Amino acid sequence: MVKAAVLGFGTVGSGVVEVLTTNHDSIKERSGADIEVKYVLDLREFPGNPVEKVLVHDFNTIVNDPEVDIVVETMGGLHPAYDFTKAALEAGKTVCTSNKAVVAEFGNELLETAKANGVSYLFEASCGGGIPIIRPLCTSLTGDVIEEVTGILNGTTNYILTKMADDGSSFEDALKEAQANGFAEANPEADIEGHDACRKIAILSSLAYGHFVDFKEVQTEGITKITSDDIKYAKAIGASIKLLATSRRTTDGIYAMVSPKMVAPSDPLFSVNGVFNAIFVRGNMLGDSMFYGSGAGKLPTASAVVGDVVDAAKHLHQTLDMTWRPEKLELLGLGDVTNRFFVRVNGSAEEKLSAIRAIYGDVEVVTVPELSGEFAILTAPMKEAAFAAAAEKTEGFISFIRLNF
Amino acid sequence: MVKAAVLGFGTVGSGVVEVLTTNHDSIKERSGADIEVKYVLDLREFPGNPVEKVLVHDFNTIVNDPEVDIVVETMGGLHPAYDFTKAALEAGKTVCTSNKAVVAEFGNELLETAKANGVSYLFEASCGGGIPIIRPLCTSLTGDVIEEVTGILNGTTNYILTKMADDGSSFEDALKEAQANGFAEANPEADIEGHDACRKIAILSSLAYGHFVDFKEVQTEGITKITSDDIKYAKAIGASIKLLATSRRTTDGIYAMVSPKMVAPSDPLFSVNGVFNAIFVRGNMLGDSMFYGSGAGKLPTASAVVGDVVDAAKHLHQTLDMTWRPEKLELLGLGDVTNRFFVRVNGSAEEKLSAIRAIYGDVEVVTVPELSGEFAILTAPMKEAAFAAAAEKTEGFISFIRLNF
Repeated sequence: MVKAAVLGFGTVGSGVVEVLTTNHDSIKERSGADIEVKYVLDLREFPGNPVEKVLVHDFNTIVNDPEVDIVVETMGGLHPAYDFTKAALEAGKTVCTSNKAVVAEFGNELLETAKANGVSYLFEASCGGGIPIIRPLCTSLTGDVIEEVTGILNGTTNYILTKMADDGSSFEDALKEAQANGFAEANPEADIEGHDACRKIAILSSLAYGHFVDFKEVQTEGITKITSDDIKYAKAIGASIKLLATSRRTTDGIYAMVSPKMVAPSDPLFSVNGVFNAIFVRGNMLGDSMFYGSGAGKLPTASAVVGDVVDAAKHLHQTLDMTWRPEKLELLGLGDVTNRFFVRVNGSAEEKLSAIRAIYGDVEVVTVPELSGEFAILTAPMKEAAFAAAAEKTEGFISFIRLNF
Repeated sequence: MVKAAVLGFGTVGSGVVEVLTTNHDSIKERSGADIEVKYVLDLREFPGNPVEKVLVHDFNTIVNDPEVDIVVETMGGLHPAYDFTKAALEAGKTVCTSNKAVVAEFGNELLETAKANGVSYLFEASCGGGIPIIRPLCTSLTGDVIEEVTGILNGTTNYILTKMADDGSSFEDALKEAQANGFAEANPEADIEGHDACRKIAILSSLAYGHFVDFKEVQTEGITKITSDDIKYAKAIGASIKLLATSRRTTDGIYAMVSPKMVAPSDPLFSVNGVFNAIFVRGNMLGDSMFYGSGAGKLPTASAVVGDVVDAAKHLHQTLDMTWRPEKLELLGLGDVTNRFFVRVNGSAEEKLSAIRAIYGDVEVVTVPELSGEFAILTAPMKEAAFAAAAEKTEGFISFIRLNF
């Protein structure tokens, strides 16, 4: 019998208790791990809920109990989640978490603490919700040099962009609908500004390239500037618009960024819609692969946490090798990154095309009948710095979106 | 330094040597495993190829060398692949293979032998080529009760079906083109009759449900009866036709089958085209997930083998827990399986519909303008046995395809 404690009985925490309870026998049969939740820590009371029997309000009860081998941190936020994690690891307990903020901010230190204490710090649920991605990256794809990781890593923004594409609604209306349906928070900033996806791509990139990637250095743009007119252009070229979190190995170095991009139909990410997430991985031997599933939600996320808990139970007092080196990966500066760009310009294509070509070289022109008085171009691949300079010089420049093709 | 031997220097075997050589430093940096190929076993000579330096013709050289800890079996076929695997395991060497035939036929025995000798028998590359699916099933999804595994597991048939859909070509022409392009073998039977997919779904199902699934009991149909007219009907209802290998947990029991099915656009398998493979997995907590990538090919398959080799190198003389119980899973008989069916019927829908409805109950009617003199119906969900009886009674019955929706 392995005893676990769950910190935080919110959405994910209560999901973890539900998965461990509902699937107890199946987990035991498949993995041999007989896991019991000995404590649930929460400041609140839950009268009438079976959790009452194991509810405690003082973390010290957990950290000082030598019977507890596994601590599940599903509190969210940096503090006291970080502090409790650190204390649990120092007390020789493996910690499993869905808290991407703590992993992105303190992962280096906590992985070190886990190792020093002969236990593990596991965070499969921190990226892509229920999608198994961290374990495959660290254990199946070890034969490959990873060349690219590109994910639709945030369900809220993908839901909003899917709504905008399906219904022609504005960003504001789609956001309101997402909030009404429980797919966006009252304060949606972390999602719609890309901060959530930024932390996730930093974690995935650290594992893929083997060195710590600091999320603060990942160029991050959200989806607040995407309009229904942009969607019309995307449809005109057969593309969809997705918030992509990308990191890529180039001959100049590795870069990482989060930004909305147009995605072509041939791209496996093209048809990842609604609250689903997907992570595309390219290896130098494997070629292209993709992992798809529920990126959020109580039970899918809890399923991923429990996957970690089971692994921890099977490897008590061992340090599982899902980690990176603490030395920071120096990311390529944005100016040196090459992309293609979709650019909207005021005026008529006939009149302006020679001026545009003088600035951008050869371009493809896109027009949408309903959007008179403007046109758009698709540039050839160019460095971000060169694009910024070109945009500056473009008379009637309206807006741009990067292309993922 | 960990010493490995590769049995068979064919497509996959030479790929394994290439991956281990090309990515040697990256593997060592990411995983700490310093892996050297000490021997390659092949009956042939390879004059001028660097492999000459390590080429041997006698398996005893390998099995009797205590320095060799890992044996890679990429010979294909049942014998002597099975015999060499057995001997290597008994000599205390972990075996990694891409050979689905041996795993499906002798997996029970070889997993037992591995365990008895304190080593592992690993076969990530046996299903889905480079797609990491076995490790996620066994290590990430342990918190879930797996309810369904459905895969496009054979690149040859998926290439043929994609060609037929894209070009309107016949099965025979698409097969010839696949052979000309190296995507189908001169003797394509194992692929087009579904035998290859059958072995793969038996392996995946054994892992997903935790008990040995005997591939000989998996109902298997190939794609040889699919015509360009079927494709026209599929397009008329917006569907694609895929060879799906499925196993599913129902209230009556677990069943497994391989057969062509119509797939709806909302299904993540819908747009898996060409030689790509994908595996859809549904867990009772995780919900829907999908793993997508190169299902075959030298380097993708070799990448999966090397993932196993690295894991083996990190866990020398341990039995990794990617296994199933040897007691056979009793599969639900086909007659008790529920499916929906697409049925083509000679005659006119107007005249025959009341007779059809008397047999099948409520159905949807599909017609294709070019295909006069016939029509098709989509049935409600019904048991296979009931469908077989209904088909028998259907005057002018032409053919049927199951629906995956």
